[in-house]
Amino acid sequence: MQIEKYLIDEHNHQLSTKHQRNFEHVAADINNLDGVLTKLQAFNVAIPSWALGTGGTRFGRFSGGGEPGSLEEKIEDVGVIHALNRSSNSISLHIPWDIPDNASSIKQLATQLGLHFDAVNSNTFQDQKDAEHSYKFGSLHHVDKVVRAQAVEHNIQVINYGKELGSKALSVWLSDGSNFPGQLNFREAFQRTHESLQEIYNALPHDWKIWIEYKPYEPNFYSTTIGDWGQSLLLANKLGDKAATLVDLGHHLPNTNIEQIVSLLLMEGKLAGFHFNDSKYGDDDLTVGSINPYQLFLIFNELVEGMDARGMAHATSIGWMIDASHNVKDPIEDLLQSVQAIKIAYAQALLIDTPALKTAQQNNDVALAQEILQQAYRTDVRPLIAEASLREGGSLDPIGAYRKLDVRNNLIKERGLKTVATGL
Amino acid sequence: MQIEKYLIDEHNHQLSTKHQRNFEHVAADINNLDGVLTKLQAFNVAIPSWALGTGGTRFGRFSGGGEPGSLEEKIEDVGVIHALNRSSNSISLHIPWDIPDNASSIKQLATQLGLHFDAVNSNTFQDQKDAEHSYKFGSLHHVDKVVRAQAVEHNIQVINYGKELGSKALSVWLSDGSNFPGQLNFREAFQRTHESLQEIYNALPHDWKIWIEYKPYEPNFYSTTIGDWGQSLLLANKLGDKAATLVDLGHHLPNTNIEQIVSLLLMEGKLAGFHFNDSKYGDDDLTVGSINPYQLFLIFNELVEGMDARGMAHATSIGWMIDASHNVKDPIEDLLQSVQAIKIAYAQALLIDTPALKTAQQNNDVALAQEILQQAYRTDVRPLIAEASLREGGSLDPIGAYRKLDVRNNLIKERGLKTVATGL
Amino acid sequence: MQIEKYLIDEHNHQLSTKHQRNFEHVAADINNLDGVLTKLQAFNVAIPSWALGTGGTRFGRFSGGGEPGSLEEKIEDVGVIHALNRSSNSISLHIPWDIPDNASSIKQLATQLGLHFDAVNSNTFQDQKDAEHSYKFGSLHHVDKVVRAQAVEHNIQVINYGKELGSKALSVWLSDGSNFPGQLNFREAFQRTHESLQEIYNALPHDWKIWIEYKPYEPNFYSTTIGDWGQSLLLANKLGDKAATLVDLGHHLPNTNIEQIVSLLLMEGKLAGFHFNDSKYGDDDLTVGSINPYQLFLIFNELVEGMDARGMAHATSIGWMIDASHNVKDPIEDLLQSVQAIKIAYAQALLIDTPALKTAQQNNDVALAQEILQQAYRTDVRPLIAEASLREGGSLDPIGAYRKLDVRNNLIKERGLKTVATGL
Amino acid sequence: MQIEKYLIDEHNHQLSTKHQRNFEHVAADINNLDGVLTKLQAFNVAIPSWALGTGGTRFGRFSGGGEPGSLEEKIEDVGVIHALNRSSNSISLHIPWDIPDNASSIKQLATQLGLHFDAVNSNTFQDQKDAEHSYKFGSLHHVDKVVRAQAVEHNIQVINYGKELGSKALSVWLSDGSNFPGQLNFREAFQRTHESLQEIYNALPHDWKIWIEYKPYEPNFYSTTIGDWGQSLLLANKLGDKAATLVDLGHHLPNTNIEQIVSLLLMEGKLAGFHFNDSKYGDDDLTVGSINPYQLFLIFNELVEGMDARGMAHATSIGWMIDASHNVKDPIEDLLQSVQAIKIAYAQALLIDTPALKTAQQNNDVALAQEILQQAYRTDVRPLIAEASLREGGSLDPIGAYRKLDVRNNLIKERGLKTVATGL
Repeated sequence: MQIEKYLIDEHNHQLSTKHQRNFEHVAADINNLDGVLTKLQAFNVAIPSWALGTGGTRFGRFSGGGEPGSLEEKIEDVGVIHALNRSSNSISLHIPWDIPDNASSIKQLATQLGLHFDAVNSNTFQDQKDAEHSYKFGSLHHVDKVVRAQAVEHNIQVINYGKELGSKALSVWLSDGSNFPGQLNFREAFQRTHESLQEIYNALPHDWKIWIEYKPYEPNFYSTTIGDWGQSLLLANKLGDKAATLVDLGHHLPNTNIEQIVSLLLMEGKLAGFHFNDSKYGDDDLTVGSINPYQLFLIFNELVEGMDARGMAHATSIGWMIDASHNVKDPIEDLLQSVQAIKIAYAQALLIDTPALKTAQQNNDVALAQEILQQAYRTDVRPLIAEASLREGGSLDPIGAYRKLDVRNNLIKERGLKTVATGL
Repeated sequence: MQIEKYLIDEHNHQLSTKHQRNFEHVAADINNLDGVLTKLQAFNVAIPSWALGTGGTRFGRFSGGGEPGSLEEKIEDVGVIHALNRSSNSISLHIPWDIPDNASSIKQLATQLGLHFDAVNSNTFQDQKDAEHSYKFGSLHHVDKVVRAQAVEHNIQVINYGKELGSKALSVWLSDGSNFPGQLNFREAFQRTHESLQEIYNALPHDWKIWIEYKPYEPNFYSTTIGDWGQSLLLANKLGDKAATLVDLGHHLPNTNIEQIVSLLLMEGKLAGFHFNDSKYGDDDLTVGSINPYQLFLIFNELVEGMDARGMAHATSIGWMIDASHNVKDPIEDLLQSVQAIKIAYAQALLIDTPALKTAQQNNDVALAQEILQQAYRTDVRPLIAEASLREGGSLDPIGAYRKLDVRNNLIKERGLKTVATGL
Repeated sequence: MQIEKYLIDEHNHQLSTKHQRNFEHVAADINNLDGVLTKLQAFNVAIPSWALGTGGTRFGRFSGGGEPGSLEEKIEDVGVIHALNRSSNSISLHIPWDIPDNASSIKQLATQLGLHFDAVNSNTFQDQKDAEHSYKFGSLHHVDKVVRAQAVEHNIQVINYGKELGSKALSVWLSDGSNFPGQLNFREAFQRTHESLQEIYNALPHDWKIWIEYKPYEPNFYSTTIGDWGQSLLLANKLGDKAATLVDLGHHLPNTNIEQIVSLLLMEGKLAGFHFNDSKYGDDDLTVGSINPYQLFLIFNELVEGMDARGMAHATSIGWMIDASHNVKDPIEDLLQSVQAIKIAYAQALLIDTPALKTAQQNNDVALAQEILQQAYRTDVRPLIAEASLREGGSLDPIGAYRKLDVRNNLIKERGLKTVATGL
Repeated sequence: MQIEKYLIDEHNHQLSTKHQRNFEHVAADINNLDGVLTKLQAFNVAIPSWALGTGGTRFGRFSGGGEPGSLEEKIEDVGVIHALNRSSNSISLHIPWDIPDNASSIKQLATQLGLHFDAVNSNTFQDQKDAEHSYKFGSLHHVDKVVRAQAVEHNIQVINYGKELGSKALSVWLSDGSNFPGQLNFREAFQRTHESLQEIYNALPHDWKIWIEYKPYEPNFYSTTIGDWGQSLLLANKLGDKAATLVDLGHHLPNTNIEQIVSLLLMEGKLAGFHFNDSKYGDDDLTVGSINPYQLFLIFNELVEGMDARGMAHATSIGWMIDASHNVKDPIEDLLQSVQAIKIAYAQALLIDTPALKTAQQNNDVALAQEILQQAYRTDVRPLIAEASLREGGSLDPIGAYRKLDVRNNLIKERGLKTVATGL
C-alpha cells in the first residue's frame, strides 16, 4: 500500500493554523533559520529491513497484524514511513533475511517510492538451513578455518547483493565471543577476526566502506571479540581507510559516555555511523529518545560540532540508521517516533549558540556552558521538524496522519492478522 | 548580603517583553493555567546548609571565593537564592557542621529573609574532635553498645536543636556498612540499627517525622546496612507511622528505575521526601537535571499522579531538598540551576493529559502513552516557571539576575577570596 | 537410558587411590568431619525440566544432539545426573512445557530413579497456541480482568498438576512489566498483581508454599512489576505465611550485594529458595560458579550462618534449584558442573571457623575476618564433595564418569542428532 | 623499625611441620615444580608510598596508629613488608607527597632494606600550596596554556627525582575531565592532552617508559579525558614506543571484561603494567582478591599465556604495583594480604594445563576448558606461596608473623597513636 499525497496534504491543512503559530514563535528566535531548515530537510535516517515486524526476546514474541511477509512489502512499509516524514529515504537490507532475488525489480520498486539502498548487513550469528558449517562457536573468529571461510564468503556475497542495489557499504556485526572463561584465547580470536575481515576488506569495491560494529555482550555472555569501540577502532586502523567504526547506542556497558566516543571517532576520521535506539539496561532496542533524550541531544551536539570541525557534509559521510526492536508497539509507529526523536535532537543541536559555548569553555564557566546547552535543549523544536517535513512534502504530524489514515488496518486487510516478518 | 527587591524588578523589567510573548504562547495551550501556576508558586525546595560551599572528592577540593564562613552567612546565601527564585524558603541544617548556638537570633535572621527550617540532619559518619567513641566501624549498627548509645544521643540532640528552630523532621543518613566480606554480620547489624532507631524514634516529638535515607555504597564499599529502599521501608514499617523512606536520587545501583520506587513508596504512604541531584556513575552529586532531565520528569510524573491518587497536598506532606556537591560551579548558581530544573520537571508533569494517559494505558496503546508524556516534556515550560517566580516577587531569570547583580563578587568583597565553608 | 551402578563403581575404583590421598589430606584439618559430610550427603539441588535442552538467545539457538523429546526423557536425564552426583534427587516441572498427562506413570518413573517432584512453575510470559487471551501486555498485572482471570486459572491448574505429583510449592515468575515510560501505572499494576496473587494464594493446599520471584528487567526493558526483593517481600508480606521470596542469582542490577539480601530474607523468615546460575552482565544464565565463585561462597556463608541462627534444617525448608541456560555446553555436563560448584561453595561455608569469625567481627578486626573466610574458601574441598558422593553411591568425578561412559553419544544413538527440547 | 631475620625464622620453625605436610601434598601433583617456584620466588610487587597510611573517602578518614610521618618511615614500612613476604622489593614514589629531598640517603636506606625504586608518580589532580596555577579545571588538558605548562614542568621534575633514585618509568594518572555536559570540548581536550604528553615524552631518558593510566570517572563525574583503555592506547600509539597503557583494576565501568583488555594490550606490546586492587562498585580501592579472586586469576591466566606467547620475562617488562586504600584495616596487613592474593592468582595461573586448554579451545569443548581452568583455581596453592617465601628468606605466614611480632604496637610506640601519613 502507498499513502496518497493528497491525504497527507488534507491532514496538514487541518493542522495548519496551529502549526503556523508554533512555527513562527520558535522561528523568531533563530538566527540562521534557513540554514537550520535546510539541514533538517536534507536529513534522512535509513530503516533496516528487519525492523518492520514485531520484535521479540528469548522469552517469546507477540506478533502484531499486517506485518510484511516479503521484501517488497517491507519496502512498501518504508515507503509509508518516508511518505509521512520525508526523512527515511533508504532501506538497509539484512542478508539472508531479505535476499533481493530480483534486484532490478526491487530497485525499481524502491525508486518509485523515493527510496534507495543503504548499507547491506551480513549475518553470521545464526545458522541458516542447509548451511554446511555452524556458527555456534563464532564465525570470523572461529578456530576452524573452514568456518571462517564460509563466513567470509557470505560477506562477499552480501557485498555482491549490495552492488546490484547500489549500496556503498557493508555493515558487519559479529556476535563472536565466548560464554565462559577458558573457552577462547582472546588474542588469537582477535587476530583471526582481523585476518577474516582483511579478506572481506580486500573484496570491497573501491568506493565502498566496511562498518565494524562493536557490542560488549549478548548473545555471548562472557566476552565478545569486538566488544568495544577501542577494539573496533584497532581493527579499523589495521584494515585501512575504507574501514570505520559503527556505533550502536545500545551496545555499551552501563554509564558509558557515548558522546565522548563519538567525538573521538570523528576526530580520528573513523566514525562510520550509527545504529540508533535507546535503552535503560542493556541492548534493550527501545524506541530512540524514549528513555534518555538528553543523551541523544548530547550525541548530536558532538556530531554537529565535530562535523563542522572536519568540514564534513553530514548527509553523505555518516551512516544513520535505526536499529530497534518493536515488541509492544506498531513497528511503523515506533519507527516514526524514532525518526522524530532523532530529528528533534539534531534540531536542538543546531540551535546551540556555538560561539558562546566556546567562550564559556575557554573561561571554564561551567554553569554558563550548561545554560547554553539547555537553552537549546529546552526549546520546543517540534515546529521546526514539522516545517521541514512540510517543505519536503511530508506530514506535519506523521504519527497523527498514520493513525488518521488508518494505515495499519489497511495493512491488516491486505496482509492478514497473523503474519510474521523475518527478523529477530 | 541581601538582594534588594527593586534590583530584581529592574532586571525583570528588561526581560518583560520577551517573557510576556513566551508566556502567552505556552499559556494558550494550557487548560488549567491558574491551577498550574498556583502549584508552581507554592512549590519550594529546601537548601541544605552544607551546599553553600564548594564540594570536593577524596582527591581534593578546589574552593571558590566568598564562601560562607558561618551559619549566619549560609542563611544569607539561602536568602539570596530565595529572593531570586522565590522557591527556596527553607534551610536544612546539618549538625554538627552548623550548630545553631543562638537559636532565637538564628531564627530571627531566617524569618527576616522569609525562610524557615526544614528537616535537621544528624551526622554519625565522621568523628568529631573530642568525641569519646569513633564511628570508624559504624554508629547505630556498631557492635559496641556504647558507640550506639553515643550515636543515639547525638540524634536526640539534633532533634532538640530542631525543636528550637521549628523543624518537624529528623533526617537520618547512616554510612554504616562494611568494606569487606566477613567484616559484618548483616542480620545483626540490621537488628542493632533497628534497635537504635527505635530509641531515637521514641524521642521524637508527637508531630515530628523521621526520614530514613538509603544508599547502596560509599563510603563503605562492600555493604551498607541501609542499602536500598526495601531495607529502609522494612525499618520504617517496624518503627511506626512517624517513620518513612527518603529517596536520594544518586543513591541507587546502575539503571535502577527510581520512579517505580517513588510510586510504590507513595502507595504505601511511606515516601518521606527527596534529596535531589543528578548523576551518571554513582552518587555523583551533580546539579539536578544536568545529566538526565527526562528521568526527573518521570519521577515528577509519579509524584503528581500519586499525590493526586492519595489526595495529598504536596507542599506540606513531602520533603523536597537539594543534596548536591558543587565542585566546579559557584554553589549559588548550581543551586539556582537545580531548583529551576526541579520546577521545570514539576511543571511538565502538571501538563500531562492525565485522562488521555489513563485511557491509553487501559488500551495498552504504548505508542500513544509515550506521545502523551513527551507532549508534556517537549513543551518549553520555562515561561511558566518565570511567571510563577514573577508573581511571587522573584526574578524572571534567577541566574541572569545573579550574574547581572554581581552577587558573587560582592560576597568575595565581604568575605574574602580564600574561604572554606564547613561540609564535605 | 540409565547408568548402571557398577559402571560408576568401576570408574570410582580407578580414582580411588588418588581420592583417598586427597580426602585424608583435607579431612585431617576438619574438626567436625562427620557433621560436614552428613550435611553434604543430604544436600540436593533440583533440576528444572527446561534445563535438559540447549538454550538460546533472541539471536538464535544452536541445538545439540540427543536432547530429550518428552517429559519421560527429561526425567531420565535427571536420573543420569542424580546417579552420578547423588545430589539431584528432584525435578521441577514447568507448565505447559512439560505437562504430566499421566501423573501416576510419570511419578512411577521418577520414583524408580530415586527422584521426586520439586516446585511446579507456571508460565504466563508466553502465549500458548489456542490461548483465548494474550499476555503481550502482562498477565497477573494486566489492565484487563479477563486476562488476569485466565492467568490466575492457569496457576491454579499448575497447582493441580503439582498436587498429583507430590509437589509442595508453586513457583511464580512474572515477566509483567513495561517497555516504555507511560505504558503502565506502577501502583495499579502492583495492586492488580497483589489481587491476582491473592486468588492463587487462596487456592493453595494447606501444606503448600508460593514462591515469588523477582527480576529487574528482561523481557520488559523499562520496568518489571515485581522487580526487586523489596517488591517481592512486600507482596509476600501482604499475602501471608505461605508466601516467600525466591532469589534467582541473575536477577539483580549490576553490583547488587545479593548475600545481604539473602541474610535479610532469612531474618524475616521469607527466603523461599534459589534459582542458581552465574552471570557477568545480566540474566546471563551461565553455569553456577563459572564467573564469580567467591560470591557463591559468600551467599552460602549467609545461608549456613542464618539457617543455624534460625535453627533451620536446610534440606526441607529452602528450595534449591538450578536455573541456567546451556547454549554452548552439553546440558547434562553443565548441570553436573553447576551442582558441583554449589556443593563446593556449601562445603567451604561449612568449614568457616564461626566462633573465630564472630570474635573478629566483635573486635572489628576486619583483616582477620577476611583471613578466616578465605581460609575456608582457599581450602580445596573437592575431596569432601567426592567423598560425600561416594558414600551416597555416586561418582567421585561425575563429569569424568559421564564422559568415560560416553553418555551423550548413547543418548544421540537413542534419540537422534537433531532434537530440540521444549524450553527457551 | 626493622624485623630481625631470626624472629621470622623462629616463627617459621613453629609452622614448619604443618607447612611441610601441605607443601608436599600440593607439590606431588605439579609437573614443573621448580619452574613454578622459581617464578614465584622472583615475583615482586611494588608498594606505593601513599599506601602506608590509612585511606579515606570524601566523607572522612579514620586514621590508625603508628602511621609513617616521613618518607624514611614509609620506606621502613615497605622494608617490614618485604622482610616478611620477600615479594615487595620496591617502592613507588608519589610526588609531591613524598619528595626525596636527599636522594642519596633515601637510596641508601632503601638499598639497606633490599628495596629499589619503581615508577615515579606525578600529581596534577590537586593544588599544592603556593602553586601558581590551579588544576581545578584540569592539567594536561587545560584550556589555558600556562596551566598545561606548569603541569608538564611538574612531570619533568618528577622524572628528575626518579632519575636520582634509579626509577625507570613515569606513571601518569590524570583526573582531567568534566563534571557537566558542555563543560569540555572532548576532541580538543584530547588533543591538548596529547600535546602535553608529547612534551613530557620528549623529556624522558632513553631507557625510560611512560605509563598512561585510564579511568572512567571520579573525581570528574561526566567525562574523563583519558577514560578507557582505548583512549590510553590511542595516546600511547601516537606518542611512541616508550609509551604504554597502565591498567588499574578498579578503573572500569561495571562488568568490564578486564582480562580481555589485558590480553589485547599484551598483543599490541602496549601493556605497561598494573595497579592492583579489588572493587565491587567503582574505584573502591579494596584489598586485592577480597571481592572477586576468580577475576584476578583470569587476569593472571592472560598474563602467563600472553607473556609466554611474546617470550617475555615478566619480572622486568611489566610494572606490578598495589594501588589500594586501607580505610578500615592496618595498611601493612592490607598490603600483605594484597601481595599474597596476587601471588596466589599467579601460582594458580602457572598450574593451568596449557596444552590441554589449547586442545579444548581448538575443539570448542567449553565444559572441559572450564574444568581445566578451575582445576588450577581450586587447587590450594598457599603452600607454594609459603615455600617460595621461605626459600627467599621470608615468612611462611606473613600476616601471622606480623601479628605475632606485634609490629603495629611497636610502630605506635615509636611514632605515636595520632599520626597521619600523606596521601589520600
